[in-house]
Amino acid sequence: MTELLSIILAAGEGTRMRSATPKVLHQVGGMAIIAHVARAAREAGSTRIAMVTGPKHDAIRSAITAAQPDVHHFEQTVARGTAHAASMARPLFETAEGYIAVVYGDHPLLRGDNFRAVLERLDDGLDVAILGFEPKDPTGYGRFITDGEKLLAIREHKDASDIERQIGLCNACILAFRADVFRELIDKVETNNAQGEYYLTDLVGLANAAGKKVGYGIAPENDVMGVNDRSQLAHAEGLFQELRRLDFMKAGVTLKDPKSVWFSYDTEIARDVTVEPNVVFGPGVVIEEGAVIHAFSHIEGAHIGRNASVGPFARLRPEANLHEGAKVGNFVEIKKAEIGRGAKVSHLTYIGDATIGDNVNIGAGVITANYDGYNKHRTVIGDNAFIGSNSSLIAPVMIGAGALVASGSVITDDVEADALALGRALQVAKPGRAKAIFERLAKVKKLKTEGN
Amino acid sequence: MTELLSIILAAGEGTRMRSATPKVLHQVGGMAIIAHVARAAREAGSTRIAMVTGPKHDAIRSAITAAQPDVHHFEQTVARGTAHAASMARPLFETAEGYIAVVYGDHPLLRGDNFRAVLERLDDGLDVAILGFEPKDPTGYGRFITDGEKLLAIREHKDASDIERQIGLCNACILAFRADVFRELIDKVETNNAQGEYYLTDLVGLANAAGKKVGYGIAPENDVMGVNDRSQLAHAEGLFQELRRLDFMKAGVTLKDPKSVWFSYDTEIARDVTVEPNVVFGPGVVIEEGAVIHAFSHIEGAHIGRNASVGPFARLRPEANLHEGAKVGNFVEIKKAEIGRGAKVSHLTYIGDATIGDNVNIGAGVITANYDGYNKHRTVIGDNAFIGSNSSLIAPVMIGAGALVASGSVITDDVEADALALGRALQVAKPGRAKAIFERLAKVKKLKTEGN
Amino acid sequence: MTELLSIILAAGEGTRMRSATPKVLHQVGGMAIIAHVARAAREAGSTRIAMVTGPKHDAIRSAITAAQPDVHHFEQTVARGTAHAASMARPLFETAEGYIAVVYGDHPLLRGDNFRAVLERLDDGLDVAILGFEPKDPTGYGRFITDGEKLLAIREHKDASDIERQIGLCNACILAFRADVFRELIDKVETNNAQGEYYLTDLVGLANAAGKKVGYGIAPENDVMGVNDRSQLAHAEGLFQELRRLDFMKAGVTLKDPKSVWFSYDTEIARDVTVEPNVVFGPGVVIEEGAVIHAFSHIEGAHIGRNASVGPFARLRPEANLHEGAKVGNFVEIKKAEIGRGAKVSHLTYIGDATIGDNVNIGAGVITANYDGYNKHRTVIGDNAFIGSNSSLIAPVMIGAGALVASGSVITDDVEADALALGRALQVAKPGRAKAIFERLAKVKKLKTEGN
Repeated sequence: MTELLSIILAAGEGTRMRSATPKVLHQVGGMAIIAHVARAAREAGSTRIAMVTGPKHDAIRSAITAAQPDVHHFEQTVARGTAHAASMARPLFETAEGYIAVVYGDHPLLRGDNFRAVLERLDDGLDVAILGFEPKDPTGYGRFITDGEKLLAIREHKDASDIERQIGLCNACILAFRADVFRELIDKVETNNAQGEYYLTDLVGLANAAGKKVGYGIAPENDVMGVNDRSQLAHAEGLFQELRRLDFMKAGVTLKDPKSVWFSYDTEIARDVTVEPNVVFGPGVVIEEGAVIHAFSHIEGAHIGRNASVGPFARLRPEANLHEGAKVGNFVEIKKAEIGRGAKVSHLTYIGDATIGDNVNIGAGVITANYDGYNKHRTVIGDNAFIGSNSSLIAPVMIGAGALVASGSVITDDVEADALALGRALQVAKPGRAKAIFERLAKVKKLKTEGN
Repeated sequence: MTELLSIILAAGEGTRMRSATPKVLHQVGGMAIIAHVARAAREAGSTRIAMVTGPKHDAIRSAITAAQPDVHHFEQTVARGTAHAASMARPLFETAEGYIAVVYGDHPLLRGDNFRAVLERLDDGLDVAILGFEPKDPTGYGRFITDGEKLLAIREHKDASDIERQIGLCNACILAFRADVFRELIDKVETNNAQGEYYLTDLVGLANAAGKKVGYGIAPENDVMGVNDRSQLAHAEGLFQELRRLDFMKAGVTLKDPKSVWFSYDTEIARDVTVEPNVVFGPGVVIEEGAVIHAFSHIEGAHIGRNASVGPFARLRPEANLHEGAKVGNFVEIKKAEIGRGAKVSHLTYIGDATIGDNVNIGAGVITANYDGYNKHRTVIGDNAFIGSNSSLIAPVMIGAGALVASGSVITDDVEADALALGRALQVAKPGRAKAIFERLAKVKKLKTEGN
Repeated sequence: MTELLSIILAAGEGTRMRSATPKVLHQVGGMAIIAHVARAAREAGSTRIAMVTGPKHDAIRSAITAAQPDVHHFEQTVARGTAHAASMARPLFETAEGYIAVVYGDHPLLRGDNFRAVLERLDDGLDVAILGFEPKDPTGYGRFITDGEKLLAIREHKDASDIERQIGLCNACILAFRADVFRELIDKVETNNAQGEYYLTDLVGLANAAGKKVGYGIAPENDVMGVNDRSQLAHAEGLFQELRRLDFMKAGVTLKDPKSVWFSYDTEIARDVTVEPNVVFGPGVVIEEGAVIHAFSHIEGAHIGRNASVGPFARLRPEANLHEGAKVGNFVEIKKAEIGRGAKVSHLTYIGDATIGDNVNIGAGVITANYDGYNKHRTVIGDNAFIGSNSSLIAPVMIGAGALVASGSVITDDVEADALALGRALQVAKPGRAKAIFERLAKVKKLKTEGN
């Protein structure tokens, strides 16, 4: 396969977002917009990826570096147009062989296929191929001036004549070049326009003038939508989710109300999993066959085993690992914990930093006290143990297999296997005392009310 | 009324569902698709119902037997077409008088009216009447070849000429016959088609050839949608819900956000009930006038009395019975329990297997410990009792009327009426000790961090 | 600005709502329909507002009086038509100068602009100006019979000829008059119609007959939708929400799934706040910059400071006040409480009637026992204190700064600064006892099962 250098442009300010966060770091499907673009570039077979960001964009660079350390970063210190931005990646493209694709960084729904639509035109012998699309409403987009399959120029909307504005084929967001042609032309771009900027789209005219073969590929409109404000961000998120929902239903997942289930870019769900209405999947979730996710569940970074049951009203946080047939019920939070095969954590419980054995039963209201204000500690519970309701397990602590913790106990010391552990006060009764107390309280209330 | 035998066909594999569960057992509105079809057949006045399933369909037979024990089951051991499937019900139709309706089992939105649309044509003197509809997109459906009101044949899409494909009237899912005519023709169906199967739709041609009177009825498209994959299942669920929402609003129920409320086939709600956004009703729910269901509630098998209040974030499970004016608040789960008139269970509580008297106040974090790992036990609380926060009631246990359980108590023994019960340790203070502990913990943390 | 008297008509029964609550008290965006109309009348600069209600409408009068005490109330004791209803406000309009606007009370989406559309026509020199609109489906609406800019008559749908029914311009819900013209004409309305009622729309014909200048203004259809049944109520709610969502996104708020977030009429959210799917805002919420509201949160009457974090599954009730960087996590309810800067209330907790200091850490399952069945009491926790999991704080109680409450404690007495407080029983172990207990329970279960 031909070598491919992708240059992602993300130096713009994105002021219409009205945000202190750079536009391309806003997320779609739980991943930054610009990371989606990099993902698409990789899908298309990019051998190297360059990213051009602005001077205040440390946040972008460090976010990308954390997730994708092999991306090369370049800074455009002054905003002088897209061609100038692309030229910042000179250290990479000077030695590039094969193809160069320049792509805008604010298009979260891009797929590898969209790159291929233009790269294949280069394979066919073109020198330059630009990605186009036919928007429902072309107002504002640059129009493709074509002659059959040839692309003669890209006319910006504001410079277009009334007749040119009738053209439906518009500039999308990927410009692909033979590497040598890109190098030959990039420095010839001039600033003879109203903004005084170097426009990347001018390369089309320059290439034609130099006798190069220039054409175009086509993308579906949804694939190439750009995000400029929060409404468009919400729209992109909606389109992303719609695709994921259809994919999962095709694969044999039941979504009772598809529109109320929210996936992340990396959610993995096996067939015959049922997802009830109103479920949010953050990044890092894997669900195995036959599991049921009940309504109102919020799940991130968790692994849910075969035939496990989650919710309603469950919260699974990162490193929750439910083994086969485990059950996590309502108002339960699980964090960084193994929940053994067939174990049940049914109600009003917090399990954090713990290992729960197979077939353990955790009663309602049980809390693992895993944090002392400074450090986190682990709780380990052996197979078949039974933890009575409203107990507190003060970590670090180990409960042996088959042990029984009496309801309402505070457990600070390890409990050996098959032992009964209690940590609660004896019950004391005061006959008639409630009546006396209530009479006094009623009198206090009456006095207060009269006092007002 | 004329006797009616309905034969429901459910022998297909439903492979496009990609599911280990037979297609017709997937649910719409909390009830299996095929149970919806049987319900519609009953609404239409079926005196007997036959169901034809495949050899691996024990699950269908036992599910239907549990819910509708009078349905007669027949097995089609080899897949040889719909006419062959219908003929499996021979023991019933051999003696049938009146009418026979053959209906496909994967149409969850069918109503009695759809049967009547064809049965009334038999009443008018026809021998055979087939249910048709006019789909927005007829691609794939069998077309009705008609001559005025006469139905001459049903042409499968793949066998239809271009002109026939222009026909908008298509085969839906019910074929109705005079019983004697059905018996006369059913064994004359042949397998002269590409698949080598016996097609039920061939009965139309055969009936015409035999000089019978053949016509059709019409159904609205939504009523006769078939379910073949999970997207269609989700679509059917959406249509079902839309109908229920409109019904309830017409009847005087306020739905603040109709699209986010999910009903079951049997949900009953009186007028002047308010349902906030994001509420899921499982089967078996009855709600009386003036009740308010707050957002994020999950309710199944529960009875909610007049002016009761539920949620937000409440879970009512089967046999929860809220009497008039009772209140169940946030992060509360109620299971198999009576909640008396005006009683309040406001926060973070699990009440299971219990009887709570009138005007009882259950504090935050109270748990009924109803399960010992083997058996369930009951908690009974008398009128006007007050259960302090974070208490554990270890069932079986009885709290007398007007009694007071102090906060944080573990109650293992019965409490008599008007008594005060305590089961908690005395408070001990260690001046300055917290400071010392925190200094030590901070040091430990520092060492650990440096150790890394 | 010209003086303006607005007369709001709300005497109708609203039987199609099927409700014991008067129609105009049903809510949109958390505020009564009629209060929305009064709000719009104020936006338009009304100097006085009259409201005409029916004899059984005490509920309306007291609701409005509570919220807007300066509204003047008049009762129409017998239903004799809209002109008769408007005439009930005679004590006010007898002395009115400038303009009089008569407006129907069941139009929750009205804005000041809709009033201005007709008032400006009066400014232009007209005597009478009626608000019109062009509905998608005009069936049922009164048609505007016009001659250029002149409005000659309003023809009720049932009285209109086939040709008149082609007219798209229809009567909306505001009729504006010069005050003297209104007084001159209002008593001339007669009851020569099928219902025998006095119709306000007859004023148009009367004004023309008296040689007055009569014209019209135009409103967008959504602004002037009337509510007559619960489906229309839900539709109005949906339109209201859609407007709020777009406003917030324009202002720099991220809504991941706009359709699943529900605002109130007075919700205030600063830029760079993120709201995840499925969040309900009741009245009285203010959120400052950088805060994150996670999915499944229910918030009313709360103030959320800069960079605070709420949810998922959080409930904030009135007078919850989260200071900068505070965190309220899952299954937590906060009521009438200050949560200090950087304080954390992360899981399964109820905080009511409390003051929580800066950087306090509240463990999982902590409950403030603020209610004794008669009176509410306060809990005060000093800065940097640490409250161990599953503790109960029995108010009134004070925990000093830097104090440590051990997990599972019941705290009834004040704790001094830097002290450690414990209130829990010692742990007792019974080796092998669990095994014996489980064996016995299993035997009991077996006997029970065999007994059945």
